[in-house]
Amino acid sequence: MASSVAIFTSEGNAHLIVPEDERELAAATSSARLIPYSSVTLQHLTSAAEAIEGPLSETLSSIGLTGRAGARVGVQMKQGVQPASYAVSTLFRGSLNQTLARIAPRLELVPCDDLFEREKSIRTPVELNLMRHAMKFAARGFHEAPQAISHTADEHAVAALVQGAFEASPLPPEIQRSYGFFFCMSGPNSATASAAYARTRQRAIADGDLVMIHANTCCDGFWTDLTRTYTAGEPSTRHKEIRAAIFQARAAALAAIRPGVPAREVDSAARQVMASHGLGEAFRHGLGHGVGYAAANALALPRIHPESPDILLEGMTFNIEPAAYFDGYGGMRHCDVVAVTSTGVEVLSEF
Amino acid sequence: MASSVAIFTSEGNAHLIVPEDERELAAATSSARLIPYSSVTLQHLTSAAEAIEGPLSETLSSIGLTGRAGARVGVQMKQGVQPASYAVSTLFRGSLNQTLARIAPRLELVPCDDLFEREKSIRTPVELNLMRHAMKFAARGFHEAPQAISHTADEHAVAALVQGAFEASPLPPEIQRSYGFFFCMSGPNSATASAAYARTRQRAIADGDLVMIHANTCCDGFWTDLTRTYTAGEPSTRHKEIRAAIFQARAAALAAIRPGVPAREVDSAARQVMASHGLGEAFRHGLGHGVGYAAANALALPRIHPESPDILLEGMTFNIEPAAYFDGYGGMRHCDVVAVTSTGVEVLSEF
Repeated sequence: MASSVAIFTSEGNAHLIVPEDERELAAATSSARLIPYSSVTLQHLTSAAEAIEGPLSETLSSIGLTGRAGARVGVQMKQGVQPASYAVSTLFRGSLNQTLARIAPRLELVPCDDLFEREKSIRTPVELNLMRHAMKFAARGFHEAPQAISHTADEHAVAALVQGAFEASPLPPEIQRSYGFFFCMSGPNSATASAAYARTRQRAIADGDLVMIHANTCCDGFWTDLTRTYTAGEPSTRHKEIRAAIFQARAAALAAIRPGVPAREVDSAARQVMASHGLGEAFRHGLGHGVGYAAANALALPRIHPESPDILLEGMTFNIEPAAYFDGYGGMRHCDVVAVTSTGVEVLSEF
Repeated sequence: MASSVAIFTSEGNAHLIVPEDERELAAATSSARLIPYSSVTLQHLTSAAEAIEGPLSETLSSIGLTGRAGARVGVQMKQGVQPASYAVSTLFRGSLNQTLARIAPRLELVPCDDLFEREKSIRTPVELNLMRHAMKFAARGFHEAPQAISHTADEHAVAALVQGAFEASPLPPEIQRSYGFFFCMSGPNSATASAAYARTRQRAIADGDLVMIHANTCCDGFWTDLTRTYTAGEPSTRHKEIRAAIFQARAAALAAIRPGVPAREVDSAARQVMASHGLGEAFRHGLGHGVGYAAANALALPRIHPESPDILLEGMTFNIEPAAYFDGYGGMRHCDVVAVTSTGVEVLSEF
């Protein structure tokens, strides 16, 4: 429920102050030293912000931070994102920094947002494997999509069938949690899906409509960001042309990906293909952004965007989402998640 | 995606600075004056925190707040909660207060957390109706539970079937969004479900196990917090005794609810019944807490808890969750959501 506090030392040790209720899950998915705490109990109406004060103080003291003059702690101070890790998440807001200032007044708090974003952009082999799992589970929802679209009348019903297929698919025993969201946007609603905010409505799907299925699902903390677009009924010649352009743009982007390449060149490779098909204006957003600890965060590194200053590094994972949108008519997008390998690219969502 | 900023004036006007992508949804579900903004575009890698600065400055200026000496703005500074409104939520963290200090240096920022929590604890008739809808939709998942438990082998499969029934149920045309989470905890796993953090595992369900289904679902911004407990196969005499005690405790709690009553008396009414059945120690948590804008927040008003200072008011909505937990064996909980009426109580989740 996001009410944990993680402390990383420069020696590479991790300490995790975690609610007692979530200790089992933390132990199964993290190698950090766990310091459990309880907030609300039958005896006390204590908030998490209050309950972490003691454990936080002890932990800082145990690693020699409270007494030392000139000690510095990096904390996140800028805008960030919180993936839906549960029905509700705890926000410490400014209270965490206030607590730090109270229990360790000699500590200097410095912003660590940029460092943290860079660290979060690179996957370890274990994390990469969880992402492969996540894509495989999400694929089971997409496998249901053509049948769902041909048999149902509206976006809500299609989304439910696809989501249901995802939920019902069995998991390997080592996976702790797999959950997420599938959205369906059809006809004119798919034209406005250029934005980060996908949403299923109750629109009746008509024959010939473009029907976009978008998924953000999570496997033990690692997210997918996937889109496939279908036609209700037979694809028109125009649909086939747009699809061919999108797949050509995707291939150009994939061919450009390897360590050391500026992210904007990957965007450019796809964008040039779209423009050559007369779809430059219809491709309204950047080609991609970092995907892993969260989905649908256009500012996660690396930003595959015309204005991006980012350079691709081995282990980075991001999406590639060439698309074309036509107001009042519809949109087509094909969004995959890829990883940068030592020599090129691995498509994690090959389905 | 929680990247909106709401401004309420003392005259009762509401201004909502909202991402362009979410404007349609905001217009359908809010009467606030909408001020749309765009963050990341094809031209700029602008964060929401940066993009709101202009609209926020203009809005504060338009309501005469930036120039006036002594003007005060309440902002949330303490721990709070963020319901899962999407796959990812934006956190402004401390950046919003920094922006305010920069664009309106004469404004005094004061904490408004407690005022806000009190206001959020009371439902309008429109909101109450959305909560009735939310409970009805969640009930469709629970209707599937007995069959799912009798036909499947493990917690994951049961949760998927129940979630699927919820997802697939049709919605009235006026509802914009209905989504959420169903969890299944069986046998010893249900014993640890006394905590706020419910979680489905892959445990094989055995004949005679207690099987708890917990739901947190959302209908256009209003949440459910519901639990039902079943037996796999035939309930034992002991199961029947515990169930009878829980329903007697529930009845005692419901009979105690009306405006003006201290919330701790409602807890006490249920707790005495549980104790009279020898289940005092097994009932490990408070009887309930506010439910509405979020679920599973034990600090939402009114706190139905032995130490609660809260007084019930007409329009408050909260859960009533008498329960008994036995380590290593199992747990039984029956959680409903209720509303305080002018003379007593309405059970919103009568199914």
